[in-house]
Amino acid sequence: MSSQLSTALQAELNRLKLEVHSLRSQQGAEQITVGNYLLTRLEQLGVTCMFGIPGDFNLGFLDLVEDHPTIKWVGGCNELNAAYASDGYSRVKEHSIGALVTTFGAFDFDYTRTAFSEMVPLLHLVGVPSTSQQTSKPMLHHTLGDGRYDAYIKAAQQVTFSQAMLHNKNDAAAEIDRVLIDAITVARPVYLSLPTDLVNEKIDSERLRIPLSRNQPQNDPQVECYVLDLIANLVNDAHGDVVVLVDACTIRHDVRGEVGELLKKTGFPVYAAPMGKTAVDETYERYGGIYCGSISRPEVKEKVESAKIVLSVGSMRSDFNTGGFSYNIPTKRTIELHSGVTKVQFAVFPGIGMKELLPKLAERLSHHHENAIKIPVPKFVTPVPKEDTNTITHAWLWPRVGTFFKPKDERLTSAFWMFRYLRSPVWSTKFCGAVSDGSLLGAALATKDVGLGRTILFVGDGSAQLTVQEFSVMLENGLKPIIFLLNNYGTQLTSQTRRKYNDIPNWNWTSLFKTLGDTEEKRSRTYTVRTKDELSSLLNDQTFLAADKMQLVEVMMEKHDAPKGLQMQAELSARSNAYDKVMRPTSFA
Amino acid sequence: MSSQLSTALQAELNRLKLEVHSLRSQQGAEQITVGNYLLTRLEQLGVTCMFGIPGDFNLGFLDLVEDHPTIKWVGGCNELNAAYASDGYSRVKEHSIGALVTTFGAFDFDYTRTAFSEMVPLLHLVGVPSTSQQTSKPMLHHTLGDGRYDAYIKAAQQVTFSQAMLHNKNDAAAEIDRVLIDAITVARPVYLSLPTDLVNEKIDSERLRIPLSRNQPQNDPQVECYVLDLIANLVNDAHGDVVVLVDACTIRHDVRGEVGELLKKTGFPVYAAPMGKTAVDETYERYGGIYCGSISRPEVKEKVESAKIVLSVGSMRSDFNTGGFSYNIPTKRTIELHSGVTKVQFAVFPGIGMKELLPKLAERLSHHHENAIKIPVPKFVTPVPKEDTNTITHAWLWPRVGTFFKPKDERLTSAFWMFRYLRSPVWSTKFCGAVSDGSLLGAALATKDVGLGRTILFVGDGSAQLTVQEFSVMLENGLKPIIFLLNNYGTQLTSQTRRKYNDIPNWNWTSLFKTLGDTEEKRSRTYTVRTKDELSSLLNDQTFLAADKMQLVEVMMEKHDAPKGLQMQAELSARSNAYDKVMRPTSFA
Repeated sequence: MSSQLSTALQAELNRLKLEVHSLRSQQGAEQITVGNYLLTRLEQLGVTCMFGIPGDFNLGFLDLVEDHPTIKWVGGCNELNAAYASDGYSRVKEHSIGALVTTFGAFDFDYTRTAFSEMVPLLHLVGVPSTSQQTSKPMLHHTLGDGRYDAYIKAAQQVTFSQAMLHNKNDAAAEIDRVLIDAITVARPVYLSLPTDLVNEKIDSERLRIPLSRNQPQNDPQVECYVLDLIANLVNDAHGDVVVLVDACTIRHDVRGEVGELLKKTGFPVYAAPMGKTAVDETYERYGGIYCGSISRPEVKEKVESAKIVLSVGSMRSDFNTGGFSYNIPTKRTIELHSGVTKVQFAVFPGIGMKELLPKLAERLSHHHENAIKIPVPKFVTPVPKEDTNTITHAWLWPRVGTFFKPKDERLTSAFWMFRYLRSPVWSTKFCGAVSDGSLLGAALATKDVGLGRTILFVGDGSAQLTVQEFSVMLENGLKPIIFLLNNYGTQLTSQTRRKYNDIPNWNWTSLFKTLGDTEEKRSRTYTVRTKDELSSLLNDQTFLAADKMQLVEVMMEKHDAPKGLQMQAELSARSNAYDKVMRPTSFA
Repeated sequence: MSSQLSTALQAELNRLKLEVHSLRSQQGAEQITVGNYLLTRLEQLGVTCMFGIPGDFNLGFLDLVEDHPTIKWVGGCNELNAAYASDGYSRVKEHSIGALVTTFGAFDFDYTRTAFSEMVPLLHLVGVPSTSQQTSKPMLHHTLGDGRYDAYIKAAQQVTFSQAMLHNKNDAAAEIDRVLIDAITVARPVYLSLPTDLVNEKIDSERLRIPLSRNQPQNDPQVECYVLDLIANLVNDAHGDVVVLVDACTIRHDVRGEVGELLKKTGFPVYAAPMGKTAVDETYERYGGIYCGSISRPEVKEKVESAKIVLSVGSMRSDFNTGGFSYNIPTKRTIELHSGVTKVQFAVFPGIGMKELLPKLAERLSHHHENAIKIPVPKFVTPVPKEDTNTITHAWLWPRVGTFFKPKDERLTSAFWMFRYLRSPVWSTKFCGAVSDGSLLGAALATKDVGLGRTILFVGDGSAQLTVQEFSVMLENGLKPIIFLLNNYGTQLTSQTRRKYNDIPNWNWTSLFKTLGDTEEKRSRTYTVRTKDELSSLLNDQTFLAADKMQLVEVMMEKHDAPKGLQMQAELSARSNAYDKVMRPTSFA
């Protein structure tokens, strides 16, 4: 015991020494190791958790993370899961960045794709063999065995915005700064490789005095002026009949405030694309709901598509975000504002970004307020339907859970179609393609960090299996998310055909947390609900509502029930794939 | 019920039609779809299972797999796991190939690295958007959102030997054949992308009459003759004092038979590198055990390093396979035979491959038999040690389980160091970097397929967590592997420092299979053993030995006990990383 105590004291002593050292380095007063330089930069960007997996080539850096006074190491069960966790963290913790640490050659690709396409700022730090090994290229474990030490960074180039391979201590600080500035500027993943022997090399800490900031080039005043005139004229011709449509990049490129000002000054009605949900406060009286092309609610579709001008802010026109590209808004009626380009009807103005343009636009268009405020905005009410059956249907479920949310809840789902059913105050659901238990881990940590309330996940049983191990990491970290697990007896919701390959193994979800380490259910609770009555009574249960433990609610549903929005989406997807134009095996002659 | 019956009858009817069609196509009698052309090729290569995950862009192809008369679809819980499964399948099923199916943009990278470096033939088939979408490049889900539809194949180029993107039906068959021939020739993963609209396009089936074969170029007779003379002279000068050292590529490049002939004709003693284990029958009287540089058993090290000539066959000199590059054999005493090159002392002979060379060498060197047969070979006996404690130690465990194996067992582990402790008849352990539950799934299916006996996995708790979901797929598929799970209370075995980041969550392993769907333990059994007596009595238990269900044995061990071979390996690894030459945080001043 006394030896354990002395080990603990020594560890505390080391940590304090490091903190003093780190503070002095931040003042530029002394040299700092490359590893701690990077950690200081991340700390400055608000990073409080790093995710990843220990491996031979990153252990020296992890020593520094473990000793860091404010950054917490959250080890995952594999690289895929840790990557999702860093992604989830980044999505919830706006203005910061997700950070993932892996070892040479062991990394996943899938997550970077999602982070890249959905504009999530991430640092992927990879511990790599020493600089001398990078030169002599021995056949180490985790290499490809043929001396190509640059293969992984070449692959990473395809799915990260920028990359840096640190080779010597002289340009380490500049290279670290370069990729981090890229990540926060373009809101995309970046890649940094750190050789084992550079981790503890000392460098000048002078640069740390100046915090990193977005590298947004300024608009050319002459072009900007031209664009403002053009837009002002168009809006005048339309007598202020404008609808604002906000999308994902309003959030990612940090123009929520500017959009809010524009809306207040002009009185224009505002709608959101699914991934732009929460870009404007949904209790705002001029907010009319979600527009998603042909799968929008009819009243929303009518209002958006009949406006004389659609002012689109930060759009991200992916298939799932646009109802399978079914926008019915002619380019002639569209003004598109982006982070680095503006489009007015058919004209493109490269280099004119919305961050600067929006405040000026708000001024120029404010005189339309009087007319614009009269444009009606549909009310979005979703009463819980009365149904004959006590079975839990999608048609009933979504309006019902809508009444359960509290203002500060952070909700996650990959169910883009859910927007048809739910509107609740300060709704902050993150729609993303990558949602699962892995992202929940990161999101729950970030939610706690930024002072939001409960973290709530809606997930299908198949998605939950994908990264299921991370529930054990949540238990270890004392997190208390609520997971609604929709169990339709092991069938993919989106399946068009009833093929066996869509079946997934049916698990005993209510024993999961016990298996993952919480044997006596000290840190978790699980429930199965099979009827509307059971779910309703749970949603009114005070113990459940307190959310003082991690809770999983297995919601049993019919095998082939699917929400209407999803059915519409699936039909659109199937139509765009080309299988059906040719003979399928079932009609094999 | 009658509608279900008719559906089942219809499905059976479709399957039979397809089988007839497939058989007729194989005779070149009629056209075949691109998808079925590929399946026929895989069937010809002995593929009986395909692994992967359904996704929008591969569903049309999966329809064909599901309807295929001899190829079984084994869906995994995520891409990472399915990739490991296909890898495990390929390792066990020699002379065939592993096959993985994923959807556009959702694939893992880690597995391909391992398969590439450890020479495992794999087909990675990716369902991609239609040819017209590849041209118009819409922002589909699973794309990067910036129109770069070629990003994933560019990344795959780094970790696969060759790639084909099918663009039209005209060259589809030739392209499929090209990558499959590459995979079987070089024993490495290859990548093939199949657009949705090509799956059911009809092509000529004529090519299918000719089965695919390895594309091994022939040795130049003049150079080969020169090389034979050179080797013969060297061996003569050494008076037949030769040791043969077999390694991984003896297995991967299919020269087991040729090596066996050489050994029989010459009488040379033979040793194996860890990854070459099982390349020669370990009951062979002239087999002396495993050589692994400085972590070899002393008597083996002495014999190999004192031989006048080391004839190395199919070597793969990675750090883990060579005791951290600690071979002590001068190049002047080395002859290296590879699939496409021969090295005699310092001379390199490109294009001279071992498949043709070995039989000629066997003839030329056979006159040394009389002398060579007298060279002594050390006996490898590993008695189970008597220890004072009833705690299960590594020193006791490995010799003990060695007595439990049966000749036809297929054993898997990533524990390279285990060779120091185990020798058993027809030992067929696959050493590989990628072993975990995912690989076990594939290996167990392949083991069944090739008529081997029990599949036995040795795995640490951390590794078992990595791809744990696949146990549920094994349960679904009625597989009956035995898993020895070494639980040292959540600490990485290899950890040099006792850092917290090495801790892993401690799970309740004995409830795992119930959670994963086998609630009533109809298909599985689990055990925890805490003492030598408990483990010994289990290893003698008839129910356990029958292996009629999937069985997991949780072996509780001391937190910081580690086998000596692993300790030596870890020290060698740590020395080659460079953290220690500089100040570490624990000595921060």
